[in-house]
Amino acid sequence: MESLSLITFIEAAAVMVSSVSGMIKASEKKMDLVGAYSVALLVCFGGGTMRDILLNRRPFFWVENEIYLFMVLLVTIAFVYIPSVHNLTKLLHRRTNTIEAIGLGLFSISGLFAALNLGMPLFSSSLMGVITGVAGGVFRDIVINEIPVIFKFKGGLYAVASFIGCWICIFFVFFFNAAFLGFIIGTIAIIGIRLMSVYFGLKLPKPLWVTEEEE
Amino acid sequence: MESLSLITFIEAAAVMVSSVSGMIKASEKKMDLVGAYSVALLVCFGGGTMRDILLNRRPFFWVENEIYLFMVLLVTIAFVYIPSVHNLTKLLHRRTNTIEAIGLGLFSISGLFAALNLGMPLFSSSLMGVITGVAGGVFRDIVINEIPVIFKFKGGLYAVASFIGCWICIFFVFFFNAAFLGFIIGTIAIIGIRLMSVYFGLKLPKPLWVTEEEE
Amino acid sequence: MESLSLITFIEAAAVMVSSVSGMIKASEKKMDLVGAYSVALLVCFGGGTMRDILLNRRPFFWVENEIYLFMVLLVTIAFVYIPSVHNLTKLLHRRTNTIEAIGLGLFSISGLFAALNLGMPLFSSSLMGVITGVAGGVFRDIVINEIPVIFKFKGGLYAVASFIGCWICIFFVFFFNAAFLGFIIGTIAIIGIRLMSVYFGLKLPKPLWVTEEEE
Repeated sequence: MESLSLITFIEAAAVMVSSVSGMIKASEKKMDLVGAYSVALLVCFGGGTMRDILLNRRPFFWVENEIYLFMVLLVTIAFVYIPSVHNLTKLLHRRTNTIEAIGLGLFSISGLFAALNLGMPLFSSSLMGVITGVAGGVFRDIVINEIPVIFKFKGGLYAVASFIGCWICIFFVFFFNAAFLGFIIGTIAIIGIRLMSVYFGLKLPKPLWVTEEEE
Repeated sequence: MESLSLITFIEAAAVMVSSVSGMIKASEKKMDLVGAYSVALLVCFGGGTMRDILLNRRPFFWVENEIYLFMVLLVTIAFVYIPSVHNLTKLLHRRTNTIEAIGLGLFSISGLFAALNLGMPLFSSSLMGVITGVAGGVFRDIVINEIPVIFKFKGGLYAVASFIGCWICIFFVFFFNAAFLGFIIGTIAIIGIRLMSVYFGLKLPKPLWVTEEEE
Repeated sequence: MESLSLITFIEAAAVMVSSVSGMIKASEKKMDLVGAYSVALLVCFGGGTMRDILLNRRPFFWVENEIYLFMVLLVTIAFVYIPSVHNLTKLLHRRTNTIEAIGLGLFSISGLFAALNLGMPLFSSSLMGVITGVAGGVFRDIVINEIPVIFKFKGGLYAVASFIGCWICIFFVFFFNAAFLGFIIGTIAIIGIRLMSVYFGLKLPKPLWVTEEEE
């Protein structure tokens, strides 16, 4: 697989998208610069750091590419203090789902490739993709004391979208030896399934312990 | 110590018991399949993963034994969607304390052995046992936004039970060189102390900062 | 840099100060011995363990120096059960900010040195210092289900104090090759900035998303 530089590319894209998603949450919670930067760092690097800890990879990708840390800092300062950028927040707010879906897609596939490269078995690799995809958002929600969206029944398909997309990607990697194609189609699948579930109310079948009236 | 395969056996048992304990919590919170699976994974693998991260062991035991991940998935699907299994939940609900006590006992001793095998000093090893035993439940409670039972005064002996059992096990390992016996008696001690504290209200002496009327 | 034994010295001091800070929180929450010891362990070792995990250093400093674990246990038992020590709590309570500031300063600089010793680039090293300094408090607040002070706008300068102090320390290390001087001045700077921000209400400029009346 030619996927080492591919991972870097996916990561850079995921970091940029996620820093904006962190800003949306920080503005909602009226955080100051430090809070906003911390949340942005958690969203941007939480998933990848989790992945690197689980896979025992060092140095972390944000140590190797220190430029990421500056980029996120600049984005944060711009959103917190520059009026013209700040005004974007309201606009972006309506796009929260889209932005989070893109981050979910990119991080999931990056985690999947990292695990496959290290020779992990397929099912573990796909779970590693899901963990990398969702961990940033989970950490963010834990520190701001909310129940992570992944644990809410009404949240729509989130981890499931990541899981399906990972297996689509695995399919292309192993049957056509096409890592880049797998990345593209897997990511699009994750974003698509996630957004469809949000806009059309797709959900998993109702568990037996949820009764009619509770729903 | 002949304890490498012993650890595997203890782990398998602990995983099975803990997945059921995860289901009880998931049904309480009316979670969907993903939420239930995530909580089950946290309860089953949170403690052991924590242990492996702290001891720097790779691959994780759930990567080496991918079958665990499938087993937990099957248990989850059965509890969420199959009526006859689902009906067990109410029955098991009344047994929550017993099930959690068994998980606590098995995970604690497995963490203890793993640390001893790596040559850690005794006191650190016993704390590693306690951390492995309680971490799964702590993670579970953090993500569902509850205060972990270990931090509540009214929770009864929990970490203390694990701590005492670990030292009983250490005693047998070092004085009689009997790892298996230590495992059996240590685990039973943990389960016993935990359950006795729940049913007979055993507690640590009241701290000075808790006054009569507050209790 | 002659900083290896320096790190040990800083750590021991930070652990002692932090265990007392943990006791203050435990008395506030009316915890029992186990809760108090757990919180003390999190405050004392959470930051350093986080640092060691991120830097992939093993054994952890609390495994190498098991005596720390006993010291914290003794401090905890004394505060929970010995009346004359317990009476200090109220006195110390009024000094919470000072005690936490000292812990912040010592841990930040210890994290900074550890990262520099491993050859990490400067900006990452300074963030590593900040993470080591604040992580213990963040973990503590997460497990007791509070929003960590670092994320509250009204909390005053906290991470910022750590960040500035780390750069002051870096300045001395690199321009004068004076690790010990850097440690002293950096730590004092962190404590000073933190306390000034608490007592004189120093804050970061208000973010654009905080309006007049909300403040």
